[in-house]
Amino acid sequence: MKLATLKNGSRDGRLVVVSRDLTQAIDAASVAPTMQFAIEHWSWVEPGLEALYDQLQAGHARGAFGFDPKKAMSPLPRTHQFVDASAFLNHGSIMEQAYQLTVKKSEGIPVLVQRQSDDFWGPCDDYPFPTEADNGDFEGEFGVVVDDIAIGSNAAVCESKIRLVTILNDVSMRTHLFRELQMGFGFINAKPATVFGPVAVTPDELGQSWRDGRVHLEMRVSRNGEWFGHPNGCEMDWSFGAILAHLAYNRNLKAGTIVGSGTVSNRAAREVGSACLAEKRALEKLDSGESTTPFLKYGDRLRFEVLDAQGASVFGAIDHRFVKA
Amino acid sequence: MKLATLKNGSRDGRLVVVSRDLTQAIDAASVAPTMQFAIEHWSWVEPGLEALYDQLQAGHARGAFGFDPKKAMSPLPRTHQFVDASAFLNHGSIMEQAYQLTVKKSEGIPVLVQRQSDDFWGPCDDYPFPTEADNGDFEGEFGVVVDDIAIGSNAAVCESKIRLVTILNDVSMRTHLFRELQMGFGFINAKPATVFGPVAVTPDELGQSWRDGRVHLEMRVSRNGEWFGHPNGCEMDWSFGAILAHLAYNRNLKAGTIVGSGTVSNRAAREVGSACLAEKRALEKLDSGESTTPFLKYGDRLRFEVLDAQGASVFGAIDHRFVKA
Repeated sequence: MKLATLKNGSRDGRLVVVSRDLTQAIDAASVAPTMQFAIEHWSWVEPGLEALYDQLQAGHARGAFGFDPKKAMSPLPRTHQFVDASAFLNHGSIMEQAYQLTVKKSEGIPVLVQRQSDDFWGPCDDYPFPTEADNGDFEGEFGVVVDDIAIGSNAAVCESKIRLVTILNDVSMRTHLFRELQMGFGFINAKPATVFGPVAVTPDELGQSWRDGRVHLEMRVSRNGEWFGHPNGCEMDWSFGAILAHLAYNRNLKAGTIVGSGTVSNRAAREVGSACLAEKRALEKLDSGESTTPFLKYGDRLRFEVLDAQGASVFGAIDHRFVKA
Repeated sequence: MKLATLKNGSRDGRLVVVSRDLTQAIDAASVAPTMQFAIEHWSWVEPGLEALYDQLQAGHARGAFGFDPKKAMSPLPRTHQFVDASAFLNHGSIMEQAYQLTVKKSEGIPVLVQRQSDDFWGPCDDYPFPTEADNGDFEGEFGVVVDDIAIGSNAAVCESKIRLVTILNDVSMRTHLFRELQMGFGFINAKPATVFGPVAVTPDELGQSWRDGRVHLEMRVSRNGEWFGHPNGCEMDWSFGAILAHLAYNRNLKAGTIVGSGTVSNRAAREVGSACLAEKRALEKLDSGESTTPFLKYGDRLRFEVLDAQGASVFGAIDHRFVKA
């Protein structure tokens, strides 16, 4: 099934069930008022939400209305934990080559970054940032929302706790990123608010495209209406289950925890394009000695969308404009 | 006034108002059911909570009962953002000297670490960790809880949004910390769940000990009943307001955001002691060439407490035992 959160003036918004084709929605308040409530009471609310979804699909849901992604918040407008992985080693490898970085990664251990989760932005909201000198960038990613996971759980158990899948634009400010990376303590000014897709879906909605704990679909990115890239999620070097297990080594993960994949990146990046500016700029530097693609300008419009095998949008599109704060 | 959260089987617990001497409590459900609710509706609930506090102090609060810190959760058992600073440069300086670390800090910019906030542990709960080989450590810190802070707010505005002050033990696993620090992306396995004091207090409770955005009181730390250190919070190199302003440079901070000071550390550390094992071990290494104080052992009992000028406990004590997970 597909779920979204609509703006209603509150911090957590209101939960709706969305039809597979993303045209219709129905209020889910009779089952769960918010996405956070739904995730915390999943086994209890899932049948009721599925029933609403079935009614929507059958075209006889009373009270159904047109779904407008502009009125959507992030599926979880806020939550209690967000961890972003950097699970496509290809991306890091390109960056390290281009900028002679030495990231002391440990073999076999995924790179994870603890992030803030108090203020996610809506998929079509204007995104404010203070100055173009911060070298703004986007990162198209897949993400999962999990149920409670106990300390010490293995990858298989963790994967079984994945309740929802979505997309995100993990906005980055590269001027701060290199400074903060060198310091070692992770990202602060480099990582302002993150933006999620209009809709989160249960893994079964992805059919065969959800396997090995990865999304085997292309992340289609465009900038100002022009194709930017369509790398596939299948090349993740760690599954979401493996990432979650590393995270749960010595801590519980509580319901609503979100894990991002890191910017989607393929070994054929020169053909399929990238999901972030930094990678494209790094390839330009490696290939011609000079990066020519500019960082984010005020007024830039970014769009991220994933289509299924039939060409239908799975999560709806993140489609937003970057503006002066 | 003083506030605490008692265990009631729910994720957020129930809010109580606690008497100044920490002996009595009264349910706050008539005003605010949870700490998160109180912080999100502060101007609305503050008068009602103050009225309950006044009744408790006057000794005629109907329904008052004995306050037992063993039944307390962290004041916010979970929240939407936790950022830990490393605001005592003296601590970093000792660590860098002892271990020949080169942390590329930027002059004038505080070191902050984004942290998880989904699962804080209670002040007297047994604390499980998987293996002594992880070189477990504690860090006694001060922390603040803030109201909503808008993007771009300055230090004075940020400081005016501090609603509560408390203490925390920021548990660290040093084996993972050095590896993760070298990688640059911040801490994951190095920083399992954090533990907060039984009680959070409004800044006015601290009187003259709350000034310049710092707590001018000693953090008294004991290990297995023996004195370990009593460094003073006054030597923070950045005020909480300045730390918050750096964090809010390009993002909103939402109500319930917690900022920690970093392990309390004084220039006279050889006299007043430390608030973490790593610093004591570093001083031993610098002074005698060898660290002799062991990292956390199963069964170790740690206690953190802050006394006011009259010798009364301000926040109650974090008093917990480390056990095998």
